[in-house]
Order: sequence, then C-alpha cells, then structure tokens
Amino acid sequence: MSAPRWPGVRAGDRATSGSGPPGDLIEALRARLGATGILTDPSDTAPYCEDWRRLYRGRTAAVLRPANTAQVALAVLLCAEHGARIVPQGGNTSMVGGAAVSEDGSEVILSMSRMNRVRAIDAIDMTLEIEAGVPLKAAQEAAAAAGCLLPLSISSEGSAQIGGVVATNAGGNNTVRYGNARDLVLGLEVVLPDGQVWNGLRRLHKDNTGYCLRQLFVGSEGTLGIITAAVLKLYPQPREVAVALVAVASPEAALALFNRFQQHDAAAIQAYEYMSGAGVELVLRHIPGARLPLARAAAHYVLVELATPREGADLRGALEGVLAAALEEGLVGDAVIAESGAQRAELWRLREEHSEAQKRAGASVKNDVSVPVSRVPELIRRAGNACEHLAPGLRYVPFGHLGDGNIHVNLVQPEGADAAAFLARDHELMDAVNAVVRDLDGSFSAEHGIGRLKPYMMPEWRGGPELEMMRRIKAALDPAGILNPGKLLP
Amino acid sequence: MSAPRWPGVRAGDRATSGSGPPGDLIEALRARLGATGILTDPSDTAPYCEDWRRLYRGRTAAVLRPANTAQVALAVLLCAEHGARIVPQGGNTSMVGGAAVSEDGSEVILSMSRMNRVRAIDAIDMTLEIEAGVPLKAAQEAAAAAGCLLPLSISSEGSAQIGGVVATNAGGNNTVRYGNARDLVLGLEVVLPDGQVWNGLRRLHKDNTGYCLRQLFVGSEGTLGIITAAVLKLYPQPREVAVALVAVASPEAALALFNRFQQHDAAAIQAYEYMSGAGVELVLRHIPGARLPLARAAAHYVLVELATPREGADLRGALEGVLAAALEEGLVGDAVIAESGAQRAELWRLREEHSEAQKRAGASVKNDVSVPVSRVPELIRRAGNACEHLAPGLRYVPFGHLGDGNIHVNLVQPEGADAAAFLARDHELMDAVNAVVRDLDGSFSAEHGIGRLKPYMMPEWRGGPELEMMRRIKAALDPAGILNPGKLLP
Repeated sequence: MSAPRWPGVRAGDRATSGSGPPGDLIEALRARLGATGILTDPSDTAPYCEDWRRLYRGRTAAVLRPANTAQVALAVLLCAEHGARIVPQGGNTSMVGGAAVSEDGSEVILSMSRMNRVRAIDAIDMTLEIEAGVPLKAAQEAAAAAGCLLPLSISSEGSAQIGGVVATNAGGNNTVRYGNARDLVLGLEVVLPDGQVWNGLRRLHKDNTGYCLRQLFVGSEGTLGIITAAVLKLYPQPREVAVALVAVASPEAALALFNRFQQHDAAAIQAYEYMSGAGVELVLRHIPGARLPLARAAAHYVLVELATPREGADLRGALEGVLAAALEEGLVGDAVIAESGAQRAELWRLREEHSEAQKRAGASVKNDVSVPVSRVPELIRRAGNACEHLAPGLRYVPFGHLGDGNIHVNLVQPEGADAAAFLARDHELMDAVNAVVRDLDGSFSAEHGIGRLKPYMMPEWRGGPELEMMRRIKAALDPAGILNPGKLLP
Repeated sequence: MSAPRWPGVRAGDRATSGSGPPGDLIEALRARLGATGILTDPSDTAPYCEDWRRLYRGRTAAVLRPANTAQVALAVLLCAEHGARIVPQGGNTSMVGGAAVSEDGSEVILSMSRMNRVRAIDAIDMTLEIEAGVPLKAAQEAAAAAGCLLPLSISSEGSAQIGGVVATNAGGNNTVRYGNARDLVLGLEVVLPDGQVWNGLRRLHKDNTGYCLRQLFVGSEGTLGIITAAVLKLYPQPREVAVALVAVASPEAALALFNRFQQHDAAAIQAYEYMSGAGVELVLRHIPGARLPLARAAAHYVLVELATPREGADLRGALEGVLAAALEEGLVGDAVIAESGAQRAELWRLREEHSEAQKRAGASVKNDVSVPVSRVPELIRRAGNACEHLAPGLRYVPFGHLGDGNIHVNLVQPEGADAAAFLARDHELMDAVNAVVRDLDGSFSAEHGIGRLKPYMMPEWRGGPELEMMRRIKAALDPAGILNPGKLLP
C-alpha cells in the first residue's frame, strides 16, 4: 500500500468529502503547534503509519506532535470542531494495532513523543509524575536514579511510552508481585474528546470521591481520552535477588511449586515463569550462546525469581529450602540457582529469547491468553492436544507468566513445512486454543488488549450487557466518536 | 420523624402521585419474592430506615429481601417498569448515609442480607467467590478456614457486608500492604438498572478485553448497579506477626520511621498507624483497662505491625534493628515490642479504642481525609493550628493510617464546654481542616465515600470535567436515575 501525498496538506485546500481532514484544519493546527509540532510530508509521516508488527499500513494527512498538555487540548479541540478523527500514538509498539491509522487517510495521528518530561519524583511518597511520551525504560531509569523501583517491565520497554503502557494496561513479568499498569496508577491527566483537560494527577492511596475515572481510562486504549501524564506508584529497590531454573515433572508440578513459594513468602516472588521443553529447545538451537545449565533437558521448566529490599535476607537459602522439599516429593527433577548477576542473566535469557527463537524456527501463531491460576496445567495440556490434533508436527510452545495465569500459547510451524500454509490456518488454530480458554473461564487477551486486531472477538466473549455498557460509556464520553476509531469496540 | 403505615402496601391500592411506589408494584414484588422476600410492615422496615450513625431517618413502603441474583434482577426489573427508585442496602454501616432511604417514602430498599452464600474458595488460585450479603467478618473466617487471608479489615466488619464493602471501596488498617477493596476485586456480578445481570465473575489476574467495568462499580456506592457477588483475591496467612508501640519525636519523625521500615522491607508492613499524644491520653482516661506500656507519655506515637508467612523470619529482630537505628538518630524516644498475642492486642487497643474514647470525652467533629504520604506531618501541624485557633481548648486528635496518607483528623470538644455549641461549629471546623487538605493536594473523603452526606462538596472538589464525566456515566448506565438517588452525585 502506498502513501500518496495528501491534497489537504496544501494551505487553503479543503479536503473533498470522505477523503480526510480539511486543509484549513491542518493549517490551523500548524499555526498553533508550530513547524516542529506537525508533520505532513509523507516521508515524515510514514513511520507513524505502520504498526510495529506490520499488520497494518495506513496513511494520514498529519502527525501532530504537541509539546505540552495545552497543545494536546488545542489540537483535540480543533479536530473536534472539524469532525476530524484522532489516533493517539505512543511508542507504536502495540501487538494488536492499537495505534494503527486507517488506510483511507481520514484520521490524524497525535504522537505523544515530545511530551517526555519527568515532572516530579518523590522518594518519600514513592511516586513518579511523568508525561505520556516518556519511554518506559527512561521512566524506570528516572525512578532508579531516585533510589526507587518502577516495577513495570515489558519487552518493548525501550520504545513503549508511559501513555500507551497505561492506556493498554500493560503487564509483564513482574505482575505476579506488583500487578499490572492499572495497579501502579494513582493519578492521570487526560485530554477529553471535547478538548477539556481533566487534571486527575492525584498521588493519594485513598480517595473515595466518586467514580474511579482513572481506572476507566487505564486500558481504554485511547478511545475515551488522551492520557497526557500519570502519577505512578514506586517501590523500594530490591537489594537481594535470587534466580533459579527448575526442571519440573509436569505443568501440575510447576503449579504446585508456585504454591510452595507463595506459602513460603508470596511477597518475595518477583517472577514465576513457565517454559515448555520444546520452547527451551528452540532457544538452545537458534540463539547463539544460549545454554542449559542442567544435566539433561526436561519437558517442563520453571524460572523463579525472588527479590527483597531486606538486606541479609538469604534468598538463596529460601530457594534451596523450597526446592529441596519439592525435590524430595518428586515435584522437581533438577534445579540450578544462579551464583552471580551474569548467571542470572543467562537463566533469564532462556525465557526472554523465546520470541526470537520462535521467529527463527519459522512461522508462528500466537495466543496471549489467561485462565485462573489453578487451571494453567489444564490449559497447557488441553490446548496442546487440540493443536497437535489439528496440525500434527507443530512445535507446541506454551510459556509465560504462570504466577498470574497468563500463558502465551504459541504454535510454531512443523519443521520444514510451508510457512504460508501454516499461517493460513491461524484462525483455526486460534479458535482451538480459545475454545479451551473459554471452557476454563479464561480471557482471549490477557496483556495485549483488543486494538484493531480483535474487536471482532468482543461480541462472542464480552457480548450482552458488558459490551452494551462499554458502548454506552464510549457514547457518553466521546459522543462524536473522534478518538481512536475502530479500536477496542466492534 | 415518624414512619406512618404506607397506604401503598395494601393490595390493589395505587399510590397517589409523588407519594411512593404503587400498590400493584408491591404486590407484584410480593408474588415474585415470596413472603420472606418482602417486608412492608413499618415495624419490620424501621430498622432499615435509620442509618448507623443516626444521621438520617426515612421511611419506605417495602424492604425487598431477594434470595438470589435472579430475584434481585426481577425486583429491579419490576421497579424499573414502575419507575420506582431503589436504595441498595448491605449492613447499613455507612459513615455518610450511603444506604439511607429518603423521608418521603418514595424509595424501595433492596436488602442483600439473604444473599449470604460463600460460593467457592480456591486455595490454589487464592480466590473467594462470595455473595454480596455475607458480612465481612464471615468472609474473613471462610478464607481462614481454607488456610488463606482475606486482608480487608474495617471496624464495622461484623455487620458490613461484602456488597457494601466493595460498592464503597472500603479501606482500613491493612491498606498500606494489600490496598483498598478495589485492589482485591477480581470479578463482579452486578444487576444493572434495567434488570439485566452482568456476569463479570472472573478470577483472572490479567484480562485486557475492553473497559474495566468492575473498577467502575467498585466505589460507585450503588448508583450504577447492584453488586450481587464478587470474586476477591486472597493471600497466604501470616505465620509471624510482630507489633511495636513507638514514641516518636514529631509527625516528621513518624514519617521518617515509616520510610525506614519501607526501605527495610516494605512488603512486611501490615499496618503503620499514627496516634497523637492527646488521642492516647483520651484512651487511657476513658477506656477501662487501657494502659501505656512505656515509661512516660509522649506527644506522638506510631503503632507498627510487621507480618509474613515466612517461618523463622525474626520480625522481632527486624523491629529491633530498625528501631535501634532510629533511636540512635533521635527519631524515636522509646519503644516497646509485644511479647505475646495478648500484648499485641493490648497495643492495638490503644489505637482501636480511639473512637470510643472520643465519644466518652464529649462531642466530636470528624474528618476522614487523605494527603500524599510525604505531606502527612504538614497536615497534622497545619490542621491543628487552624482548629486550635478557631476553638481554643479543643482536644486535637489526629490519628490513623499514616502509611497510606489517610488521617482521621478528629476534633473533640473542649473539656466541660457545651457539646451542642461545639457541634454547631462543625462546618466551620471541617472547612478549616479541608482548606489545609486542599492546599496539600488531598481528598476530603479518603475511606468513607460521599453517600448522602457529602454530595454538596463534590462541585468544589471534583467539579469541572470530572463531575461532568461522572454525570454522563450515571446517565449512560442508569438513564432513569433509579438506583440510590441522591447519593454520590450532587
């Protein structure tokens, strides 16, 4: 798909009906935002028009780059007055086309990248007030510089921005301990679809004064308002960390071991990740330097990380104690505890390189699903059986956050088979996984959200009064449907 | 105010305009809910018509007592069809008239007391599915029987019911560690204003599938839907607990000590409570058996509780270590660590008897406010100065949850002064406290909510786009304004 120069970008032009925002809107925006505040040349706007996964490629008359909240408000007001629709965009790292612009050129992109100030850090409150355009990694670093931990961590954190992270309620490896983005947000500043600014930048742990609007905006994927800044909770930095790689007898044993760690000291579990033997094997095969520090390969693994700010906590001793008891009962086959930061990184690499290894192994069908924690073993078994029945020879690679019931049920094409033929069956395979997920009272989108990719699934999964309420809320807060059209709601 | 027999309760009668629900509605409800499902005799309905604090005394034609979700839905549908308004009621322990029925008899009370089943406990998931009418204390006991902890604890827990606890986002002493009710709710079942049932009883830790409706209902005080059941997060039961009473030099020292405990091991802080010397003195004077286990009285105290499931954790050693360092630096004057469960209870009694001691000391003006944690010392000082200037001789008794910035700024009448004259100045005194709270970016209602008592404060504190959004959401979900009229929104 090409991105032809848009007629509306020339001063004075009026866009023809249905074909995009009128030229006088673009000029009014340019006048208010300044030359650095708006991009209209297709070579400049192109990078904003393709999503990270390359699922969508659209075009736009303008990428707006406001420098502050007042400029965001002004831009939204001008667009609202002209009936122009807006796609808010952060780091553009959505897995589901959450910030994808339409192909018809009718939508304007509002990039938050220039709003990238850390406004305040309070190491006593343990709060961070930060603008939407700050990349997550930079936010983590700002917290660390103040001696605090911002515990949210996702693989796209170098690019993903705070606004998107909050708008999509990002999860990640540390959710088992600190919760999702939702659980870290104390306050928000939001530009509403009519250009009004809601200053909800509170840093209160208790505030029962009406409907909890911030929780409505968290996870709304830019469809109700544009998050311009947030107040996030911080935590003390861990002073001790211990990581073990454990070969377990079965998914059931992985779950039983998780419960042992919870009963030992739930508050110390920083991450609890499941990996299948097939997944680790792909990493060992395709990632140079990856190695398994156990005597032999296993069918199921757990990566567990404990952490605490408590000095002299002897987390290594804690790992040994829980693992020794589990070994004696046959839950655990073998285990290794990292002796250094380098060894910790080596163990984590087996988990973190899962996506890359799968990419190198061929085509993959990915499912980001969750079930109640107690049902994870059943999910792993039943989804595997269903998929292997449908596509004999596929590499079945379930892995992820067992501790919060979120498993990435990934399916890698059979070795040497035709990638396109495998991918042509993606819906069939996804349906098979989702049928199991539904039966186990799970969710078809645990972390990644709905975006543009999955609204069609909403009626089946969230239909009836739930979807009806969502539609009413959308209509109440964005009656003209200006914000992020075609996302989240079918 | 009297509660005359309501004409509408006689079969076949039609209520005259404006005077209450029509008799045929009452009869239809009786037919559907059965004799035990509806109370119409004023002697039966009277206890439901007066709120716990005796701020309001209303009357009603009927108290509905549905036995299950289907009956709640049917009752709401019938009321909606007749345009009758409904006041949902749990344990009726609101501090702000959140479940108070109007004086004109036009509203029907819907009591959740008969929906009191524990539906499921899963000690692997660590979740509890429970109906709205279960008292909080019974819910705690059900969790404990399964070897788990439901960490929500408030002083009214013997009467307060899960539905109300969730609908008002209750807080309490353990919020510093486990969060408010909001943070413990994974799923909800809600009867909507049109009688539809939303089954959102998920027990997922990650589920990004559209707007987070459960967080909208939590804290909505029965104005958007009637919560009939909830899935709550559970935690491992602590196996070690340690409690210390600490005399500190100042509110600033109390805060500095809190940060020491956070840096030591934030995850172990089960409660961190501030008490003023004046408050403790009132307890010692008015509560038989209360005693101060320190060499001398102080101007400021902290009650700190550490807890963990970790066996052999030596929390006593942790308390000693942090306190010894603080003693050396002059933050702490004196401290005592409980040696037994009985001693722990004795220390906690000094905190828990604050309300009772104040009641015995005369009339009180109460403020349930919050500020950022770092600003608690300033709140305590400035609010005290303001109030003592206005009413010389008053007993200034700030106390409460320093760890989450929520201080109950209570003002007890000067000794021997006229109670009524003091109470006549309640708004003047509350305004003085709230002026400081506003200046410190705080909230005028930290835990107790808005109910019928405080909607008038909403325009000043939450006015502009925030209140406008709340009104739009109310209109979107309850267009006829059937649910809990006159509460939360002005």
